[in-house]
Amino acid sequence: LKLIDYGDVDVIPVDIRATFQSIEKEVGALLEHGIKVISLGGDHSISLPLLRAHSKKFGPLAVIHFDSHSDTWESEYGKEYPFTHATPFRRAIEEQLIDPNAFVQIGIRGPLYAAGDLDDARALGAQIITINEAFEIGIQSVIEKYHTIVGNRPVYISLDIDSVDPAYAPGTGTPEVGGFNSYQILQLIRGLKNLNLIGFDLVEVCPPYDHGEITSILASNLAFEYLSLLALQIKDNKG
Amino acid sequence: LKLIDYGDVDVIPVDIRATFQSIEKEVGALLEHGIKVISLGGDHSISLPLLRAHSKKFGPLAVIHFDSHSDTWESEYGKEYPFTHATPFRRAIEEQLIDPNAFVQIGIRGPLYAAGDLDDARALGAQIITINEAFEIGIQSVIEKYHTIVGNRPVYISLDIDSVDPAYAPGTGTPEVGGFNSYQILQLIRGLKNLNLIGFDLVEVCPPYDHGEITSILASNLAFEYLSLLALQIKDNKG
Amino acid sequence: LKLIDYGDVDVIPVDIRATFQSIEKEVGALLEHGIKVISLGGDHSISLPLLRAHSKKFGPLAVIHFDSHSDTWESEYGKEYPFTHATPFRRAIEEQLIDPNAFVQIGIRGPLYAAGDLDDARALGAQIITINEAFEIGIQSVIEKYHTIVGNRPVYISLDIDSVDPAYAPGTGTPEVGGFNSYQILQLIRGLKNLNLIGFDLVEVCPPYDHGEITSILASNLAFEYLSLLALQIKDNKG
Amino acid sequence: LKLIDYGDVDVIPVDIRATFQSIEKEVGALLEHGIKVISLGGDHSISLPLLRAHSKKFGPLAVIHFDSHSDTWESEYGKEYPFTHATPFRRAIEEQLIDPNAFVQIGIRGPLYAAGDLDDARALGAQIITINEAFEIGIQSVIEKYHTIVGNRPVYISLDIDSVDPAYAPGTGTPEVGGFNSYQILQLIRGLKNLNLIGFDLVEVCPPYDHGEITSILASNLAFEYLSLLALQIKDNKG
Amino acid sequence: LKLIDYGDVDVIPVDIRATFQSIEKEVGALLEHGIKVISLGGDHSISLPLLRAHSKKFGPLAVIHFDSHSDTWESEYGKEYPFTHATPFRRAIEEQLIDPNAFVQIGIRGPLYAAGDLDDARALGAQIITINEAFEIGIQSVIEKYHTIVGNRPVYISLDIDSVDPAYAPGTGTPEVGGFNSYQILQLIRGLKNLNLIGFDLVEVCPPYDHGEITSILASNLAFEYLSLLALQIKDNKG
Amino acid sequence: LKLIDYGDVDVIPVDIRATFQSIEKEVGALLEHGIKVISLGGDHSISLPLLRAHSKKFGPLAVIHFDSHSDTWESEYGKEYPFTHATPFRRAIEEQLIDPNAFVQIGIRGPLYAAGDLDDARALGAQIITINEAFEIGIQSVIEKYHTIVGNRPVYISLDIDSVDPAYAPGTGTPEVGGFNSYQILQLIRGLKNLNLIGFDLVEVCPPYDHGEITSILASNLAFEYLSLLALQIKDNKG
Repeated sequence: LKLIDYGDVDVIPVDIRATFQSIEKEVGALLEHGIKVISLGGDHSISLPLLRAHSKKFGPLAVIHFDSHSDTWESEYGKEYPFTHATPFRRAIEEQLIDPNAFVQIGIRGPLYAAGDLDDARALGAQIITINEAFEIGIQSVIEKYHTIVGNRPVYISLDIDSVDPAYAPGTGTPEVGGFNSYQILQLIRGLKNLNLIGFDLVEVCPPYDHGEITSILASNLAFEYLSLLALQIKDNKG
Repeated sequence: LKLIDYGDVDVIPVDIRATFQSIEKEVGALLEHGIKVISLGGDHSISLPLLRAHSKKFGPLAVIHFDSHSDTWESEYGKEYPFTHATPFRRAIEEQLIDPNAFVQIGIRGPLYAAGDLDDARALGAQIITINEAFEIGIQSVIEKYHTIVGNRPVYISLDIDSVDPAYAPGTGTPEVGGFNSYQILQLIRGLKNLNLIGFDLVEVCPPYDHGEITSILASNLAFEYLSLLALQIKDNKG
Repeated sequence: LKLIDYGDVDVIPVDIRATFQSIEKEVGALLEHGIKVISLGGDHSISLPLLRAHSKKFGPLAVIHFDSHSDTWESEYGKEYPFTHATPFRRAIEEQLIDPNAFVQIGIRGPLYAAGDLDDARALGAQIITINEAFEIGIQSVIEKYHTIVGNRPVYISLDIDSVDPAYAPGTGTPEVGGFNSYQILQLIRGLKNLNLIGFDLVEVCPPYDHGEITSILASNLAFEYLSLLALQIKDNKG
Repeated sequence: LKLIDYGDVDVIPVDIRATFQSIEKEVGALLEHGIKVISLGGDHSISLPLLRAHSKKFGPLAVIHFDSHSDTWESEYGKEYPFTHATPFRRAIEEQLIDPNAFVQIGIRGPLYAAGDLDDARALGAQIITINEAFEIGIQSVIEKYHTIVGNRPVYISLDIDSVDPAYAPGTGTPEVGGFNSYQILQLIRGLKNLNLIGFDLVEVCPPYDHGEITSILASNLAFEYLSLLALQIKDNKG
Repeated sequence: LKLIDYGDVDVIPVDIRATFQSIEKEVGALLEHGIKVISLGGDHSISLPLLRAHSKKFGPLAVIHFDSHSDTWESEYGKEYPFTHATPFRRAIEEQLIDPNAFVQIGIRGPLYAAGDLDDARALGAQIITINEAFEIGIQSVIEKYHTIVGNRPVYISLDIDSVDPAYAPGTGTPEVGGFNSYQILQLIRGLKNLNLIGFDLVEVCPPYDHGEITSILASNLAFEYLSLLALQIKDNKG
Repeated sequence: LKLIDYGDVDVIPVDIRATFQSIEKEVGALLEHGIKVISLGGDHSISLPLLRAHSKKFGPLAVIHFDSHSDTWESEYGKEYPFTHATPFRRAIEEQLIDPNAFVQIGIRGPLYAAGDLDDARALGAQIITINEAFEIGIQSVIEKYHTIVGNRPVYISLDIDSVDPAYAPGTGTPEVGGFNSYQILQLIRGLKNLNLIGFDLVEVCPPYDHGEITSILASNLAFEYLSLLALQIKDNKG
């Protein structure tokens, strides 16, 4: 198994459906060859075609989703527009890409837009570990919890950089205060060790709002940690 | 005639056609009431629905277009996607919103993407005053030239902030070096005096790339100068 | 009870006494109508006229003051100049606006300007929970402590953004390292629930030193949390 | 004659009158010793006490004032507050510190706050070379004009950095687009050669709005140019 | 004992050996007069001549080294170039400037460049408290550990600002995420109390990558804390 | 003739002589294959090994040097250190790499470090067109002048980005106010058409001091213009 830099898929800014088809098709082709894909966003809408591609191969997926927002809205601009960065996980549940018994969201916090935001996500099956719960039970307990929830199912990881506090990751589009620090998010990714990791995206990094490149450096470290887990898997399989 | 702050029209990021309809409809309604509209972008794609709305009332329009790019491409991502910030003036010519005998583009410069970019624009009727020509003949001569071209036709003004040099307007998405300085662009707008001004947009201001708010300050001054011309018109009509 | 956006009171940069009169008068008028006021600074000197206005209606006030500095200096530039952002709480004690038995300062830290700074504040009645004590006993214990101190007295909250660490709030005039993180300050404000909240200010936000707007976003979240507490009060009163 | 770095005078932020007295007294003492003073602001209000100190020694002064604003308002916040950065030159005329026959303002431009701003300044005696006139007649002609106006009178130079365009000097509090470029302002200062230079201030540099320190570098070069003129005077006197 | 500001030693950018000689000689002269030296970098290469100067007087030194990197590489650009900011502590061990039984490195973390980086440092004698261990055992335990290791030996402190997380110290050349926060590093420096402190450097502060001056403010606070420890030593000695 | 992206040569920060050997050797090898080299700095010291490599093939070179500084100092830190960004052109004259009859420096301006700086450069053969002269005679005359000076000799172009004003190129290490604007420098590079161009470097771009990437964008446009001249040469040769 070799790790390759695949590069950009064909993105059409003015047609999200065409972009989704292009992502699903090209990532699907890689998966067919047994290649593991690390996707770097771009906004969170790209998780939907990525989940489509991975689910096509692996069936309904366990998902561990790090974020400050549940991204399970019905729509953002009216029901004719179902695909935005606020809706991917509702669509994925509806399309049965996600196993509703193995879907965990970590770091969710307010201020919420609507009173029912968390309940809506939970009604779709999401097991939410809010930032408050995460800080109360501690990072090691969060890791244990997501291991218990996903078990040995094939698991897809979706990491929104805004799960991290704006002090550590100012370069993002919808920052939410009161989030993880850099050490905590590193621990949360390192904790994925020994899971059946089949896919990963890291989204919502937005350089114009960054400074000193600290968001980019953190994001690249997080991708490196995930890559290291894949390397460990290969090493263990060979051992 | 009163000047009012109309505010935002309904913009749907994932559906440019819906956004265009919304702009055309709401601006059209204002024009029907005899209101003069100042539109602040937003990217240059918005000029197309604005031209549709104004042309519906005034017929094929004379257009004075300040920009570093002609924005007359056939398409940017394939022919299924005709509406982007690189195409509005080709579409407007095709839809006969612009009078091809009274269409002037000022400040155009390279580096061009394709060898034929300027010829393509000229084939559509654009009379191009490149930045080189503008600096050679001087700002007063540019003003005389656009007066000669548009005469007393109803004229729509489209001002892309990237006509200005990045030293004066860093806050934009596709900056091009070697542009107008702030005094020159102010003179070019002041020179519109005594034209039959019926519409105006100022587009492509992008705050995340700005610093010290200098782009925003310049843009607001340019809108203020246009507003002052409208005030002069009213005063002259009353006099 | 409705929440209204009152806007700016009349501020005279060159005459702090005139500004104080204007703040006291206009805020006082709002309080007379039973309106709760959220004041956004501006430097910390504005707390004095705000305390005058609130004390006039509610008598000597309990005060919970989040800050890295005690702001209880005798003066900053010589005794003829008693009103600056370093002196409001000494003046308020002298004017008997604050109940010296119910005055708590949280987050105070050095480097101090003078060896006696903390003792001077304590001599005025301030019960100081330094940042060291806060971190040692934990945020929940700090919340319990301030509840014990203020009880059910009418309590005024003064929140200086420099109580937060500069990593989370760089946009301020006298940053002090080693402060609260964003989650801790959110918890400290949420902990005010069930107190007899009668007034609130949030001061010392200074945008030119900010980046990525992270200080402004944190400050607006803190004001939102306080506003939510007022909403809960109304709901409980109606229940 | 030696050049010395005098350092800060005693500034009281909350009492502009006390600050004015301190500036006038300490600068006056230096002038009494035959020392030439270069004052670096600070906002433009400091020119008034500086003019008082210099006028006390030299009598009513010729003044060359580079600025985008005339700074001759009656007041900024009501007539009880006569001393701000918008009023120093009206006060100086009223106090007969300036010779009204030798007062020239260069670079003045809009947008003006009130229709009468320029006429008010002219009524006080100011001979205004607007930025438009300066660009039309050229920098050399501006230099000739101010030489003609001030002749061999003792002349005080007041240089507001916002006379320069914000692209060259973003670090200032009230930037106005369409100003001098760096070369032009350097030429305007070099053109002071052979005048009877008796005082100089450079004001309104505001570092938090700067970037890459370009405003500070320009300002220090402008002060260096003036200093060089003083050195030339000394050399010529010795020659 | 008086504290004096010595200022810059002679630094030759193009000849690191000449710079090292200059540092060693000038700092050595100060030490001979019984003066305690606080050195502010500059990159970490300067620790080698500083250790040479201090070791010459005090013999092999105990060293407490706060950093994200061990800085014990053999070389960075080939073996002809032994002196860079990646090598000072290997050179110092080889030159027997450091007592290998009393050399502790705190805050070390990855991503490592080579698999053996930590083992190489340990083979030289370094007792490494990685950031993971520091966060697991807590700051107080780290302080106890370094007290146990260095005992009452003369101890030199080397503090690389990149031991701190980039959120708190973006202004540095090789930032590593997942580091200490500002309060923790303050506690770690305050914990040096009662050690036999003989030298201190604070290195790798790089202003162009800073914002809001937060790195500089933190660094100056850390130097102030060390200075306060020296003041306490003097006071205790006099007591 | 094909244009290829060669990438980095081996640079040793702590040994400028080793870096010079590496540049000279690797660029020399390219020139031997008839490849034209565009070198992007890095500081101006790299021009010396580049001139060595080009002179070896082409003999003593005509040089057109755009800069605010002459870079002809004897040394910067004492005579043992002859190689820095202040000395390349003196060394190149001494080593007879430059034809002293065909060496022109354009844009030179103060403030000079030493009274003799310009005379020293002229004594080496440099024909200096100061910024004052350039602005007085106009850009077209400058172009005619350098054509007259270099004629049809093989000519090497060295472009220091600080020849441009800091408003247009803040991202550089020793900015000098009062320089060319972006249009003027573009014209100066376009004016090189029809010369016998054999080498080019563009140096002193320093991203940490940049903002909005305007310096990088200008620099890449200047390299593109030079590249376009090479493309025209090829086309003309084929024609």
